[in-house]
Amino acid sequence: MAEAPLFDTLTIVGPGLIGSSILRRARQTGTLARHLIAADCSPDVLKRVAELDIADEVTTSLTEAAAKSDAVILCIPTGAIRPVATEILPFMKPGSILSDVASVRSTLGPDISALLPNGVSYVPAHPMAGTEYSGPDAGFATLFEDRWTLLVPPEGTAPEAVSLMEQFWQQCGARTRQITDQYHDQVCAMVSHLPHLLAFTICDTADRLSADLRGDVLEYAASGFRDFTRIAASDPTMWRDIFLTNKDVLLTTFERFEKEAHLMVEAIRNGDSEAITERIQRGRRIRQSLLDNRQA
Amino acid sequence: MAEAPLFDTLTIVGPGLIGSSILRRARQTGTLARHLIAADCSPDVLKRVAELDIADEVTTSLTEAAAKSDAVILCIPTGAIRPVATEILPFMKPGSILSDVASVRSTLGPDISALLPNGVSYVPAHPMAGTEYSGPDAGFATLFEDRWTLLVPPEGTAPEAVSLMEQFWQQCGARTRQITDQYHDQVCAMVSHLPHLLAFTICDTADRLSADLRGDVLEYAASGFRDFTRIAASDPTMWRDIFLTNKDVLLTTFERFEKEAHLMVEAIRNGDSEAITERIQRGRRIRQSLLDNRQA
Repeated sequence: MAEAPLFDTLTIVGPGLIGSSILRRARQTGTLARHLIAADCSPDVLKRVAELDIADEVTTSLTEAAAKSDAVILCIPTGAIRPVATEILPFMKPGSILSDVASVRSTLGPDISALLPNGVSYVPAHPMAGTEYSGPDAGFATLFEDRWTLLVPPEGTAPEAVSLMEQFWQQCGARTRQITDQYHDQVCAMVSHLPHLLAFTICDTADRLSADLRGDVLEYAASGFRDFTRIAASDPTMWRDIFLTNKDVLLTTFERFEKEAHLMVEAIRNGDSEAITERIQRGRRIRQSLLDNRQA
Repeated sequence: MAEAPLFDTLTIVGPGLIGSSILRRARQTGTLARHLIAADCSPDVLKRVAELDIADEVTTSLTEAAAKSDAVILCIPTGAIRPVATEILPFMKPGSILSDVASVRSTLGPDISALLPNGVSYVPAHPMAGTEYSGPDAGFATLFEDRWTLLVPPEGTAPEAVSLMEQFWQQCGARTRQITDQYHDQVCAMVSHLPHLLAFTICDTADRLSADLRGDVLEYAASGFRDFTRIAASDPTMWRDIFLTNKDVLLTTFERFEKEAHLMVEAIRNGDSEAITERIQRGRRIRQSLLDNRQA
């Protein structure tokens, strides 16, 4: 006899890149949930999900879906999590789990905890996986394989609920780890948010060049610039929300970066050959460590 | 009967990534030169070139190699071009061509022109190709294929010499274009030098983090950061020279970038949602144009 799935009914709110990848994975393995609901405010998105046949049910009624689910995962922009959680939590069953996949935690943990009805657990998890594409067509069942998913349950969350979500993500193929909200946001500011801020900005700078120079930048983009454009291709709403939600940590991280950039610029201005080389070499150490970790 | 090669004797000074790729291409096609000399001040490098069997002759005597060559291409760090050209030019034959592959032009054109013996032409060309690796083992015969090589001969250079080098690079597989030194340096500052400065700096910033945070940045590097480390892996001496040689243009380009970065940071600080989104979207336009040009 096959093992019972982790959940009976699972609702994915927002079947975009992440949400539709979970649905595909759930369909493929059969071990995540017996019944899959895709909920979204956009009928067009739901129509596409139905065409792709990656859910058993689609609905625009988030509260109805929440009422019959054992787990609800919000795969929506960070800024939408509080309002949507506020709307659906009163309808959720005792023993059920609310989760989200937000890339920034900030005060989401305590904020959502304060709204939890009796017996409902909040176990958010950030899968560190993605591509520059979005929407239900962008997902794929192996998106999370061998990638980290960081679980960030608020203090005092029921251990069984945490363990269930941990199994959930491991069955999605992910490596899991549990860390605090604050540490999560610090790591992500450096690993992801600052690189995106810089990439958006360098592309923005190029876009503002005179037409001929802009054209030639595009023509010769292969020399480093192109890598930045790939990062900068990500979804604007999602990134606006990330920047706003992780504002304090991101601005502190940017200041550290800017301080180092100024030291490099000063070394260049002063023709300080040794300082430039030393700074370049420090940067290369990180690359070497990545290679040693076999991650590059 | 096969066509005669473009040059009888060709010397590559500095058989590293670029130089050894030219040698490999020349060996493969047979159309670039009849006799290939690899010259370098390092006996170890030459030993490796001999083992790889990508030259007919290796020598540490640059002047002897120059004296018997129809073309000499300096594939050495930008900072070494002036001294090496000064050393070998008096030995070069009338009708021969001196070239280099420097990534920055600055005043190299007029500087080297002033040193040219009668009948010797200077036709530098910048192949916009490379990897983060260096040394004779890093090269490959197809490195230049479908990549741009920008020819930057000084004003007044003999048209036959320019045309010969153009054919040379086209036979290396490159697309060629002739532009001025000044414009070359402006384009490259934006396309390549600024991205490298930012990538070195973000890696440097990460390297200076506390040990646990640094470790986790490495662990979760896949979320954008990793792309920067790839760019930052490039050769330190080469990049130090590029930064120093293109100092003025690079610093101006950095200032433009910094101005835009500050506007983005201010928008984030003020929670100006609309301004953030608009800046992200401008950056994405560049990506879209690249996709339209089929270069991304």
